[in-house]
Amino acid sequence: SKEAFGLALIDGYGEFFARKLDRHLRNPALSPLQRLHAFVQDAQSGMARFAYRRGCLIGNLGQEMAALPESFRTRLIATFEDWQRRVAECLVEAQASGQLAMDVDTQRVAAFFWIGWEGAVLHAKLEQGPAPLETFAALFFAGLPVSCGRAWAWPAIRSHEFIAVITSEVPPTRPSCSRKRRRVVGAPVLAEVGFFVRIQKLLRGMRWSGVMP
Amino acid sequence: SKEAFGLALIDGYGEFFARKLDRHLRNPALSPLQRLHAFVQDAQSGMARFAYRRGCLIGNLGQEMAALPESFRTRLIATFEDWQRRVAECLVEAQASGQLAMDVDTQRVAAFFWIGWEGAVLHAKLEQGPAPLETFAALFFAGLPVSCGRAWAWPAIRSHEFIAVITSEVPPTRPSCSRKRRRVVGAPVLAEVGFFVRIQKLLRGMRWSGVMP
Repeated sequence: SKEAFGLALIDGYGEFFARKLDRHLRNPALSPLQRLHAFVQDAQSGMARFAYRRGCLIGNLGQEMAALPESFRTRLIATFEDWQRRVAECLVEAQASGQLAMDVDTQRVAAFFWIGWEGAVLHAKLEQGPAPLETFAALFFAGLPVSCGRAWAWPAIRSHEFIAVITSEVPPTRPSCSRKRRRVVGAPVLAEVGFFVRIQKLLRGMRWSGVMP
Repeated sequence: SKEAFGLALIDGYGEFFARKLDRHLRNPALSPLQRLHAFVQDAQSGMARFAYRRGCLIGNLGQEMAALPESFRTRLIATFEDWQRRVAECLVEAQASGQLAMDVDTQRVAAFFWIGWEGAVLHAKLEQGPAPLETFAALFFAGLPVSCGRAWAWPAIRSHEFIAVITSEVPPTRPSCSRKRRRVVGAPVLAEVGFFVRIQKLLRGMRWSGVMP
């Protein structure tokens, strides 16, 4: 039947695309976030090749759901969830390698990625140009919270700044970030790390407080 | 003709929606970012009212461009640009009121908002639930860079932390953030502000460095 053919088509395209994703997201030559970036670049040149006239089959079918059999809905959702899981795995690796803050909900950020990416593909088709893909990718990556581990590794902090905390209580250091350093750094530097971690927490807190009534 | 009717429909809906947007984005009772948040809430309950079956006319037509007259394309793009300008104006007000960092490209962030919002509306229709709208809105707001002005105003910094910079050179303070404070605060606090601004700059820089090869 037509319905069975449609479902087979979704499965086939879903798997084809999952392999394409994995080719980038499991590329050992790149850091985890660079892998996601490489997928974005590849998808972008894919759209450019067809003059921004073709989008994604799963996205297109999702937009047509009003006119399609209900059985398509669960299959399309499952396909998106599969892609989301693959991106979330890449984000977990980004956490492990110190590119992404440990307290990020990777599944949620991966969902955010695909939500925005679908919008970007649609806008690129409408405008017939790459700007929406570039804008979405750039601000998606810019908004990701960095890891305090990575922040610490940044040379500018280590070499140029040297801070002493002159309050009576030294700010508490977060174990996940400072346990490994404790052996190699002295007390003032440790205090600096603690302060830095605290600043990051404050920054994150303020982002939320700014939008909540 | 049908084409003229379609164009009139786009204009009519575009204006109707622009008024709806303005009702939230110019609401003097809320802070600028709260206004954008209120629009999101309103749109969300609008979708809930129709059980997540209806989307946005402009978005729907944009998705159908392959089957529509070319004259629709420029009109649809112009409508999106109009909405983008309205959100960008709200973001400029957020900068002025200290909710958003001054170096944010408001037009670009506004474009990012509509790109992601269209994807969120589509996913909500597919899933027939509010989760994609909530996920997109939450992570959009969480990713916005906060203003250093606002950071400074946050009581936790002012009362609990008191830092002295013991390097020979005091970190340069960014004029836009510190000019107003210079009169009311002493030298050590000023150094703290400078350090804080610098940390924010580093954080922003690192976000980018993490994803660029």
